[in-house]
Amino acid sequence: MSGNRSITPLKIIASGVALPENKIYSSMLDEKLNKPKGFVEKHSGIEYRFHASHTDSQAVLASLAIQNALHANHIVPSSIDMLINASAIPVQALPCSAAHILEQSNLNQGIACFDVNSSCISFITALQVAAGLLATSAYQRIAIVSADIASRGIDWQDKESSLIFGDGAACVVVEKGDGNSGIISYTHTTYTAGIDFCEIRAGGTRRNPRAGMTDDDFLFHMQGKKLFRLASSLIEDFMQQVSSESGIQLKQIGTVIPHQASHLSLEHMRQRVGVTTEQLVDIYCHRGNQVAASIPSALHEAIITGRFYEKPSAMLIGTAAGLALCAMVLVP
Amino acid sequence: MSGNRSITPLKIIASGVALPENKIYSSMLDEKLNKPKGFVEKHSGIEYRFHASHTDSQAVLASLAIQNALHANHIVPSSIDMLINASAIPVQALPCSAAHILEQSNLNQGIACFDVNSSCISFITALQVAAGLLATSAYQRIAIVSADIASRGIDWQDKESSLIFGDGAACVVVEKGDGNSGIISYTHTTYTAGIDFCEIRAGGTRRNPRAGMTDDDFLFHMQGKKLFRLASSLIEDFMQQVSSESGIQLKQIGTVIPHQASHLSLEHMRQRVGVTTEQLVDIYCHRGNQVAASIPSALHEAIITGRFYEKPSAMLIGTAAGLALCAMVLVP
Repeated sequence: MSGNRSITPLKIIASGVALPENKIYSSMLDEKLNKPKGFVEKHSGIEYRFHASHTDSQAVLASLAIQNALHANHIVPSSIDMLINASAIPVQALPCSAAHILEQSNLNQGIACFDVNSSCISFITALQVAAGLLATSAYQRIAIVSADIASRGIDWQDKESSLIFGDGAACVVVEKGDGNSGIISYTHTTYTAGIDFCEIRAGGTRRNPRAGMTDDDFLFHMQGKKLFRLASSLIEDFMQQVSSESGIQLKQIGTVIPHQASHLSLEHMRQRVGVTTEQLVDIYCHRGNQVAASIPSALHEAIITGRFYEKPSAMLIGTAAGLALCAMVLVP
Repeated sequence: MSGNRSITPLKIIASGVALPENKIYSSMLDEKLNKPKGFVEKHSGIEYRFHASHTDSQAVLASLAIQNALHANHIVPSSIDMLINASAIPVQALPCSAAHILEQSNLNQGIACFDVNSSCISFITALQVAAGLLATSAYQRIAIVSADIASRGIDWQDKESSLIFGDGAACVVVEKGDGNSGIISYTHTTYTAGIDFCEIRAGGTRRNPRAGMTDDDFLFHMQGKKLFRLASSLIEDFMQQVSSESGIQLKQIGTVIPHQASHLSLEHMRQRVGVTTEQLVDIYCHRGNQVAASIPSALHEAIITGRFYEKPSAMLIGTAAGLALCAMVLVP
């Protein structure tokens, strides 16, 4: 598949997901937001998504995804020698979320764990990081988990972003494999002209009791039009760069697994970028935008529906707060 | 140096640091905390440390360290093709801190950037991650920066932890090099029995306006005795593991660059672990505990004082909230 290009060995040997209990139909949000029946589904493209309760634990949700991946694929928890958390929002400021997830999981105490964060594309970055660590032979079997509870930061006054988010977690387990599977290319670009188009201002050194903060700083804020305009201005050159770095044209890619950012973004993938319905993995109408958990959740869907290992190539792709664009082309 | 063991190529080609303007002498804290003259210096082992103002920017501090590393070593900013932020505390919950730092820096727009977080040992993890990415040849020249503003979370009611923290940032630039320099071993273990011995509970999904929070959740909390007891119970086996994985005994290591966690922890390195004064890099009395910026700041000190490249081997080592223990043995 990769022609004369070398691939970085990486084999995804397992995947799993977890969802909170509360299934939130768009009709329930019609009522909550005082809208006519059908309004939210029509405007969001979502039939239902899942929202955690206000006290559900992100670390527990992550651990359930790990358990699902291991159990379904008969992998012994003690065989995992590293855990990478690839969520966008942390559990708390200190210590790292990976330690919290390790605590809730049945993985071995004493293993290495840390967070990789590139906002909504964290999972793609973590896959590339894992491939690098496997290349050095420092680790043999790495679990990567993304878990986000976006509902905790929804601004219910915002007509646009309040409709689209769903909570969830997804995990994959990776090994170096036999070298026939792996990464053909990893393209990751960040344009900080869009740094405040998508943000939660609290959570770190910028807004807190000492530096000053309001309750609003804890909510997700999006400048949708500016974001869409910037992303649109960059996407063509970016897709060209991905084709050039991978040596593969988009139409040759077997399965395209995008960040499920919004109904519009998926339409944009189809109509402007030119991903066919047969190529595109779209789980948006039953999940919404699961932030960093979106891409691995869609990857899991591709795996269990026979659209990953059965294909000669796959592409993970997404935009993220930052503004970042990222794509990985791999041989499953 | 590595005998028959293979090393993962990694060459540190530049380093730099940045500090906020306000130099805080321990005598100033004597007054602030209503203590007799000499109390804080005696109990902390610190003559002075630096504290940012309540509105100083963590991203700006990080960018100054990057600028220092590049300028002092005549490296063109546009030659950096990836930025890794390895701080413990984020700028804000979303987007990742690396994007905020990229925005403030004079590095090229459009490069890859992301955060690596393993609390106070983030820098060591980021070095290992960078070596992996360099091994895959996806990137050629990576800047790693750690910047922490601990002063923003100091609990001034806490007699112990309020004395020890200082703010600062440090940056290194790494390449694959010619293969003569690199990582001999990376040992990273996490024991979550100590997950709440060192923490800032706010900042993510756990404590916020929706899940519930108080101003106290934004402050650093440490259970010093429990932390010390757990770390002490683990350190001997850990040092044994490091020796075994590196194939090098501690006494053979040229320079030991530890996390500057506390006066006690550095004494412990000397007396219990057996690091000699000649081996140990100790910048604590003029910096305090700079959280994740501690290790790269001490590494920079070793570099500019002729204790790094001049030695056949060096060890980076630290404990971190989690509780994690991490050590890297490398050939400079």
